[in-house]
Amino acid sequence: MTNIRTNVLIYTEDIHAHGDPSHRAAYPISLHDGIASAFPEDRYNVRAAEFGNIRESITPDTLAETDVLFWWGHDHHADVPDDISKLIITEVQKGMGFVGLHSAHLSKPLTGLLGSSGTLSWRMSDKERIWTTAPFHPISQGIPEYFDLNDEEVYAEPFDIPTPEDTVFIGWFGGGEVFRAGVTYRRGYGKVFYFQPGHESFPTFYNPTIQQILRNAADWAKPTLRRNGLHCPNVKPM
Amino acid sequence: MTNIRTNVLIYTEDIHAHGDPSHRAAYPISLHDGIASAFPEDRYNVRAAEFGNIRESITPDTLAETDVLFWWGHDHHADVPDDISKLIITEVQKGMGFVGLHSAHLSKPLTGLLGSSGTLSWRMSDKERIWTTAPFHPISQGIPEYFDLNDEEVYAEPFDIPTPEDTVFIGWFGGGEVFRAGVTYRRGYGKVFYFQPGHESFPTFYNPTIQQILRNAADWAKPTLRRNGLHCPNVKPM
Amino acid sequence: MTNIRTNVLIYTEDIHAHGDPSHRAAYPISLHDGIASAFPEDRYNVRAAEFGNIRESITPDTLAETDVLFWWGHDHHADVPDDISKLIITEVQKGMGFVGLHSAHLSKPLTGLLGSSGTLSWRMSDKERIWTTAPFHPISQGIPEYFDLNDEEVYAEPFDIPTPEDTVFIGWFGGGEVFRAGVTYRRGYGKVFYFQPGHESFPTFYNPTIQQILRNAADWAKPTLRRNGLHCPNVKPM
Amino acid sequence: MTNIRTNVLIYTEDIHAHGDPSHRAAYPISLHDGIASAFPEDRYNVRAAEFGNIRESITPDTLAETDVLFWWGHDHHADVPDDISKLIITEVQKGMGFVGLHSAHLSKPLTGLLGSSGTLSWRMSDKERIWTTAPFHPISQGIPEYFDLNDEEVYAEPFDIPTPEDTVFIGWFGGGEVFRAGVTYRRGYGKVFYFQPGHESFPTFYNPTIQQILRNAADWAKPTLRRNGLHCPNVKPM
Repeated sequence: MTNIRTNVLIYTEDIHAHGDPSHRAAYPISLHDGIASAFPEDRYNVRAAEFGNIRESITPDTLAETDVLFWWGHDHHADVPDDISKLIITEVQKGMGFVGLHSAHLSKPLTGLLGSSGTLSWRMSDKERIWTTAPFHPISQGIPEYFDLNDEEVYAEPFDIPTPEDTVFIGWFGGGEVFRAGVTYRRGYGKVFYFQPGHESFPTFYNPTIQQILRNAADWAKPTLRRNGLHCPNVKPM
Repeated sequence: MTNIRTNVLIYTEDIHAHGDPSHRAAYPISLHDGIASAFPEDRYNVRAAEFGNIRESITPDTLAETDVLFWWGHDHHADVPDDISKLIITEVQKGMGFVGLHSAHLSKPLTGLLGSSGTLSWRMSDKERIWTTAPFHPISQGIPEYFDLNDEEVYAEPFDIPTPEDTVFIGWFGGGEVFRAGVTYRRGYGKVFYFQPGHESFPTFYNPTIQQILRNAADWAKPTLRRNGLHCPNVKPM
Repeated sequence: MTNIRTNVLIYTEDIHAHGDPSHRAAYPISLHDGIASAFPEDRYNVRAAEFGNIRESITPDTLAETDVLFWWGHDHHADVPDDISKLIITEVQKGMGFVGLHSAHLSKPLTGLLGSSGTLSWRMSDKERIWTTAPFHPISQGIPEYFDLNDEEVYAEPFDIPTPEDTVFIGWFGGGEVFRAGVTYRRGYGKVFYFQPGHESFPTFYNPTIQQILRNAADWAKPTLRRNGLHCPNVKPM
Repeated sequence: MTNIRTNVLIYTEDIHAHGDPSHRAAYPISLHDGIASAFPEDRYNVRAAEFGNIRESITPDTLAETDVLFWWGHDHHADVPDDISKLIITEVQKGMGFVGLHSAHLSKPLTGLLGSSGTLSWRMSDKERIWTTAPFHPISQGIPEYFDLNDEEVYAEPFDIPTPEDTVFIGWFGGGEVFRAGVTYRRGYGKVFYFQPGHESFPTFYNPTIQQILRNAADWAKPTLRRNGLHCPNVKPM
């Protein structure tokens, strides 16, 4: 039954990489293709949004049909229109799931949902080992105690985020850094997950363990209940 | 010593009430005067900001000199410029305290800091009894187990907020409603407190217990540490 | 299929009420019967444990077969053997769900799981109105914005509990009290819910809305994953 | 003025190390001396408790005079009498601070306060780098972004603890492990801090940065308010 498939909308900035050989090597088709390949067609209905068509692809109608929005942005954070970021935040408050990937830590929708700055330290690049720190959490089901990525951009603490509801993953880097790599929040009726791996120069999103985490995140974040709107009703005396 | 006084900046919308007799009766001078009267001069340095002069009174310079910003807004939430709300949110992330009062539950700075919609139900008006649910918290020191307000606007659950770090107060209303009346958060280096009482038609801010809570909130929220900026430094391999 | 029924174990102190007419009026068969009647046989497999047979009914084997343990105790808190309380806490840490009902706020298993004293104020009795403060939570699905109980024992704040992961319900009492009536926690792999209504003198557990909450709590707290034991393995250098 | 010094009680198991050359090399006087040397006499009043004299040194009277209890135990966790662990937990609920050090993750008082099992993985030994993940927290004031310990016992995730109120430090180990090395909780009126470094074979407690953290923890955890007891008063109708 197609009508029980989870509706995933993936936002990327593929325009951003046209001149970058390392990106083309890691994602010969597109970054969207890398992320989308985590979601088999029989269980997920995947659509694409890009910075280049953001006004057409991120609308009240497309968001209303979206169970979980995955957001990968970097160069164009500041160019995302405020009204579109506000649309997304409102839809999360109504129930839509939101997954911020990698450099989305500074994106308007994620920082608007969390209320923190999202600052961190970074360098290029090193081996990362990702530890499962919440083995009881739906997002870590089927994920080993730890797994390795040969190359990832290094993100280091301190990471400016509100205290997470759950810290599902913590990253260890070969050069001596640590980072809270997977953290969860609730905002209104919506669930929010931030996940650190996914620099455009490395084929991280084709890694099977990463793909399992993306599927788990979609399954966890999809709404079971959705509000029609955000109202403050004037009620009667009882 | 004046230099150890806490710098409090109080934002109000006094313009909003010029035509409202109930407001003039409750606050003959101004709503600002009601809130400001909680802060004795020997311990606090109080300044005023109003919607009518928001561009002059809320600037990077005035915020940099502010320990705690109290925010009372209602009619002009949507008119507060986005860039000014962003300035405030950034300053909280750097360390400034923020206290949202009453109808500020829908204000741009508070909803931007919390990431939730701030929706609730409401009606006019009833007796409120406020219970101290976190007697261990700095904001409740000197506050009795409960205290009464003869008249307050009724705010009722469900209140759309992120899970509070501490729920310091819960309000009981004569008509049968409850409301999480005092809740705390941290965002970046800054502390955030939302406090429900304070409708413009009732002299709530002249109540001595309410004034003690405002002082406690200022003392709790003032920064011990402040960041110069919000940067993502590119660090060297170790 | 019987093998997918949720295994519910209900502990009560029915011995406690033999001399109390109000209890016999509210629960002519038994308090166990009141709680158990929330769980239809086709979806739940319900077993009973009582204080009088606690050594036989609460064992490593019975707990290993239990998805969710409901605990109603009052007069015999101190008489529950420490080793049995420890068994329960260990099983929750391994994944079993635990629901503390009413006077269980002072029980050994609940205070041992939460680490707080569970103290509160109380009096007999009044009308209670229960508000849903977390409408997004699985435990509140199908529950109205608020509902009334004509008579319940009054439990009042301050309630000494750790900051809840979610405050699902808040109670309003006719005499002016409020109480965090439904709160959730995680300990190890196990989920914990405390729910305030349920004094033995009132037929609260036969109330259909209360019964829906009990079913929701069982469905939420049943484990999806269970550890075999609680070990600190000595691992090898990597 | 001696009467404003913070009263610190340090529990150790010095008996445990009499046969161990590495312990004697790291702590020629005693483990107590290592921990105590963090606290200058002009600001702290330090007393000692040991497993060998636990019935005399941990009593209602000594705890009532204690602001913060530091707990270092390992071999004798199971031998600590249940009633003494209960005394400690009760005193924390009344307001006393508690700091669990290193192998205290499995101690009766800490697991009783947290309600989780405290399990983790471990091996001997490696370089540790400790990152400050909550630079805004009182416990991290004056502590650099990260600092190194040349040798520490390796503690690895998953660490079975309730979601911390703040994760102040995360440890990185040379062999590829991470660990939430400093975590905070509140129980009743009391503050709780667990801090991972401190194996008896390494002079960790003589490290000046570690000592600053111990002082910060004492200053943070000492009570501002203390309950006389843990009661459930029967209140009157209002």
